[in-house]
Amino acid sequence: MASSSASADVKPELSSSSSSSSSAASAAAAAPSRPVLFWGSGSPPAWRVCAVLLEKGVDFDGRRVQFDSGFLKTPEFLALNPRGLVPSLIDGDLVLYESLAILHYLEDKYPAVRLIPKEPAAKARCLMRMQEANNASSAAGEVVYYVRRTRPESINFPYLRCKFAVLAEELKLWESYLAGAEYLAGPGQGVSLADFAFFPNLAYMVRLGLELEPNYPNLKAYFCRMCARKSILASWPPHWLKSHGLPCLSSSILPPVEGATREACEAVAASAGAGSVPPTDVPCSRMNTADRCPVSARDVVAAAARGEESPAKC
Amino acid sequence: MASSSASADVKPELSSSSSSSSSAASAAAAAPSRPVLFWGSGSPPAWRVCAVLLEKGVDFDGRRVQFDSGFLKTPEFLALNPRGLVPSLIDGDLVLYESLAILHYLEDKYPAVRLIPKEPAAKARCLMRMQEANNASSAAGEVVYYVRRTRPESINFPYLRCKFAVLAEELKLWESYLAGAEYLAGPGQGVSLADFAFFPNLAYMVRLGLELEPNYPNLKAYFCRMCARKSILASWPPHWLKSHGLPCLSSSILPPVEGATREACEAVAASAGAGSVPPTDVPCSRMNTADRCPVSARDVVAAAARGEESPAKC
Repeated sequence: MASSSASADVKPELSSSSSSSSSAASAAAAAPSRPVLFWGSGSPPAWRVCAVLLEKGVDFDGRRVQFDSGFLKTPEFLALNPRGLVPSLIDGDLVLYESLAILHYLEDKYPAVRLIPKEPAAKARCLMRMQEANNASSAAGEVVYYVRRTRPESINFPYLRCKFAVLAEELKLWESYLAGAEYLAGPGQGVSLADFAFFPNLAYMVRLGLELEPNYPNLKAYFCRMCARKSILASWPPHWLKSHGLPCLSSSILPPVEGATREACEAVAASAGAGSVPPTDVPCSRMNTADRCPVSARDVVAAAARGEESPAKC
Repeated sequence: MASSSASADVKPELSSSSSSSSSAASAAAAAPSRPVLFWGSGSPPAWRVCAVLLEKGVDFDGRRVQFDSGFLKTPEFLALNPRGLVPSLIDGDLVLYESLAILHYLEDKYPAVRLIPKEPAAKARCLMRMQEANNASSAAGEVVYYVRRTRPESINFPYLRCKFAVLAEELKLWESYLAGAEYLAGPGQGVSLADFAFFPNLAYMVRLGLELEPNYPNLKAYFCRMCARKSILASWPPHWLKSHGLPCLSSSILPPVEGATREACEAVAASAGAGSVPPTDVPCSRMNTADRCPVSARDVVAAAARGEESPAKC
């Protein structure tokens, strides 16, 4: 139904010519008539767009960008998207970025498969949840970036605990949104743009160790429901199928492991005064190196890809 | 053309009855037929919605919420908006929150004044800039929250300088978006939802000391252009007309003032190691108490409100 290159590893090229032009217009002019999506494996915003293109059955040319290749910061790419980010979509002579903007654009451009409900209350929910998906992403990011960028001996556990609490509040809200509903547009509604905006964030959290059980039964059922969609499976970040994520979001990192007791860590944090959050770029905390992700989305997806039932644990 | 209560200080009530019901449905049922907007003075997201309602000529009931009143965290309000935030809009039996979602909703519901362009490229830009407005807000917020929450003696100036640089990059982008264009939907286009999404963030930055001269001539002209709109003037945050903001975003805070030389501060930051960013809630840095905001939006708005030309400096 759609381009198989969505999950293929394609070397990105701005056009088939070797022109050195850096204007978006000329790159677009050289582009084929089907939309071109620049995406990257593991980017939830790019996944949103990829999945919606597949769900709508749009024939598109997916070009996977390697984040460490420098491609996104080349003058040619920056002429298309000055933010140097994926997703970026070229459709005819238009260039679009910002995932939620692209979702709105696709809904207008490809209306055959409707993903914003007509019914006013459902439509309102759909529009809200699309935007709120970024709140979920931020709450998770706060934990992930802090844990990844802080030296293990400098982790301020009361502070980290606070970030976990904010994330839990956020997740409780989504859990409530799914009460009595299969999808985020509400009871009786089918899948909508809201789901494609939110699900990649949820999958990101699960990959990083978020336990959906026992606190989030609606989210867990929703996770499995979305995992069963062809558009989601076909756009699952390829490298996520090959490796576990670092379990930053697993509650098992509270209290800490590896010889440091929680009390000791908190004492260290307290003695450092109110502030001990380093704006460093320590690549990764040692706390994150254990391969002990308690929820395996990989197994779920691999099974689905083989046409099998989901493993019992999901 | 629209409710004069938009800029009045109205005690918010969920309904005119004294019912203790906490359900959104019953509160909505008791609501009048015109939309009710809960807003707060100084909230850029609330301002977005207020201005669009005025621009579209929608007769609405604006209810100003005092942020320190606790009203947003009452069970009654949380039943309407579980995030406990403004803006929140009640329209008939619908309750909406998330400012950008509300803007999309209003565009559909009140199409007489169109604020998303029809022309595809302009529409694409409008959709993108709406979302990107949140990037501008985040970049400014990074500076503001850091300066406000950090004790003056703990300010890490290299770190702060980095945040200023990120903000400058962001502003350069918006400066480029306005090249040859009066409004954000691009050359030849009129005002759109993109402007109502972005302008409140820009005005917030100007209030907090951002200097638009000499680096951002397009943004400066744009600022004055938007200030001249009735919908913007009528929805200007009332308390902003009575006071200057703390100039966190003025480049004059780099290098620091009040006896600390820049070198001394950087030495302190360096000696504290890589990390010295405190997650504290120190209410306000002493650095912010000087009333030396170099750009006075207040003067611009006051003059416009009196029907006078903008002061020469803007």
